Amino acid sequence: MPILVQKFGGTSVANAEKIRRAAQKAIDATKKGYQVVVVASARGHQTDHLVADAMELNPNPPKREMDQLLSTGEQQTVSLFAIALEAMGHKAISFTGFQVGMITDSTHTKARIKSIDAKRIHKELKEGKIVIVAGFQGIDENDNITTLGRGGSDTTAVAIAAAVGAEVCEIFTDVNGIYTTDPRIYTKAAKMKEISYDEMLELASLGAGVMHSRSIEFGKKYNVKIHVRSSSEDVEGTYIIGEVPQMEGIAVSGATIQRDMAKISLVGIDNKPGNAAKVFHRLAEAKVVVNDIMQTEVSTDKANLAFTVAASDLRSAKEAIESIKGEVKCDSVFTREDIAEVSAVGVGMRSHYGIAEKMFSALAKARVNIDSITTSEIRISCVVDKDQAEKALIAVCDAFDLDKSAEKRAKK
Amino acid sequence: MPILVQKFGGTSVANAEKIRRAAQKAIDATKKGYQVVVVASARGHQTDHLVADAMELNPNPPKREMDQLLSTGEQQTVSLFAIALEAMGHKAISFTGFQVGMITDSTHTKARIKSIDAKRIHKELKEGKIVIVAGFQGIDENDNITTLGRGGSDTTAVAIAAAVGAEVCEIFTDVNGIYTTDPRIYTKAAKMKEISYDEMLELASLGAGVMHSRSIEFGKKYNVKIHVRSSSEDVEGTYIIGEVPQMEGIAVSGATIQRDMAKISLVGIDNKPGNAAKVFHRLAEAKVVVNDIMQTEVSTDKANLAFTVAASDLRSAKEAIESIKGEVKCDSVFTREDIAEVSAVGVGMRSHYGIAEKMFSALAKARVNIDSITTSEIRISCVVDKDQAEKALIAVCDAFDLDKSAEKRAKK
Repeated sequence: MPILVQKFGGTSVANAEKIRRAAQKAIDATKKGYQVVVVASARGHQTDHLVADAMELNPNPPKREMDQLLSTGEQQTVSLFAIALEAMGHKAISFTGFQVGMITDSTHTKARIKSIDAKRIHKELKEGKIVIVAGFQGIDENDNITTLGRGGSDTTAVAIAAAVGAEVCEIFTDVNGIYTTDPRIYTKAAKMKEISYDEMLELASLGAGVMHSRSIEFGKKYNVKIHVRSSSEDVEGTYIIGEVPQMEGIAVSGATIQRDMAKISLVGIDNKPGNAAKVFHRLAEAKVVVNDIMQTEVSTDKANLAFTVAASDLRSAKEAIESIKGEVKCDSVFTREDIAEVSAVGVGMRSHYGIAEKMFSALAKARVNIDSITTSEIRISCVVDKDQAEKALIAVCDAFDLDKSAEKRAKK
Repeated sequence: MPILVQKFGGTSVANAEKIRRAAQKAIDATKKGYQVVVVASARGHQTDHLVADAMELNPNPPKREMDQLLSTGEQQTVSLFAIALEAMGHKAISFTGFQVGMITDSTHTKARIKSIDAKRIHKELKEGKIVIVAGFQGIDENDNITTLGRGGSDTTAVAIAAAVGAEVCEIFTDVNGIYTTDPRIYTKAAKMKEISYDEMLELASLGAGVMHSRSIEFGKKYNVKIHVRSSSEDVEGTYIIGEVPQMEGIAVSGATIQRDMAKISLVGIDNKPGNAAKVFHRLAEAKVVVNDIMQTEVSTDKANLAFTVAASDLRSAKEAIESIKGEVKCDSVFTREDIAEVSAVGVGMRSHYGIAEKMFSALAKARVNIDSITTSEIRISCVVDKDQAEKALIAVCDAFDLDKSAEKRAKK
């Protein structure tokens, strides 16, 4: 029998009625011939309440204890989910992270999964039970409870799907799929039928919500078919899959705006081997996640080095840079917070020419000034003034026909 | 360094302020030179809320899932307790039942402890940490979370104290010790300085709250000194200990009323070997806990057999008896619910004469009719009309000077 993993987020299990509705989806799937594993998050605002309880006692709570505390949220959901399923006439059993052998490293609050022991899950599935696994949590090799950080339940779902060999991993959410861009800004945005892991990774890292990049990385690594779909509407959503030939026919699959970012520029640093490494080593020590890096030579021995970070990391990033400024012989440091990044993403870029030119032209026509540019194999990103970001996105979307379905664009 | 176990119940950790106050007690104990292990219950009404959440989904929730659900209450408390201690400048670490290897059998909702692996606790204590262990919960050999049932956190505390070789196990509660009888009925009741495990077991099984009998059994088995004391007042409470010679000097240590009970009488059963066994085997199958059993012969081949049960078990008990009535050739079955049991307890009974006579005389003087009598080595119990129970208790207390401290009574 094929196995289906279904993941329900906090809003989909926020109260008894919603838990029942989610449980019904699991039962429906068993009727279609699937063995079903459910992965669930903490109910509604439970996690926020627990964080508030902790903060009342300690503004800087130890991370191990926060994991011990927060993991109870998911544990409550999964047991309630099993309790609901039994009332609805279906055998069920719930598991915490440690009960399914979800072994992680010991990086509390953002642990990484090392292995999953799927034996217990298979055993219970074979007995005809729906298995409900607590998302977001694991256990390290010393029996300490860990949590996976933001988007952790998605990662759990995809990892479980990989471990049990599921046919599909369904991610139920409050949107009915993945759109070519943010429909709140570009109302004509089209829903995608499918998208490749690589494209989704770029979109996720660019802040296009829905799924966290770690879960997609897992999906890519273990080739798990992920179906992002609505928890309220019963319609097909978007499949995140490996690349298929027709994807090559489309130059740009989606576009994003990334806000809440800042840029730090180091002007005139000594352009000698090891200097850039020193800068980013210091930033890593300060636990700053760097988004994009741009460097240009200004003379044979001087360069300008710039990078973008999340706005919330700006202060730590700036402190880190100030502390190393002298060492790398930097003339001056300046920062910009009034920026946003507009990106176009598509695996088709690899085989299409003129995509960058088309994007820059569209921005020029819309009178958007480009502060800086970075690219990857399947992405072109432009840093622009925050005030011009939405105008820029709309221009890019129009240029690449992101109001049309991928099928239509491929035929063009 | 000597080890101290401190147990805090739900009301003692109900909010941030109370958690801090309890944490301060743990810190104070470390300053007195103890290594401290804290055992904590779920905060305030958390367990009730979780039960309500489950009932909303399923009026008859599976027990395994209830254990999975309810164990989160204690897990939250212990992590918050550790978070508070760290804020107060003391190193701390919290553990769930499985993390301290609290292995139980698989009887969900009322599991029994089989073993505890104290290695991890000792390791953390040696590193100067206060260790906080979730009460009430354990894990079976298949990694299923279990709970210990009513009074479970007391049992955890005493069991941990036994496992780590603690000098004392302090039970913080809302009373400042154990009294000779219920002060709400007998206002002159005296606080006891110490009481033996056996006496406390009798009192507990007779419904004299404070501690559940399973925790006292554990204390007796492993000779753990238990100190029942107030969480709000800093005064000595009552020590529950092995017998000491002076206890023998006191005929009666305490007296109790047990209400919410019922009596079932089987009149004229065939008095042949195995009939009583059949009756109680059937009751055990129906999971009815029998309190006292009384049997009298009415002829060479007929007997009357009666027993008391908790009022809540009456229905199941009656059904069980009805189903076996024919087999044991019982003439008729009748039940009484309008009863209560008044008991006098004391290890001194073993060496004192005339205790029963003194008790019956006191009841006669107070014009209380005795329905039936049972005794153990250290207890005399009389079933009386519910309406007369308080009057009966007062008469017994007066007769045995339960308004005076044990020291004074011993000198008499």
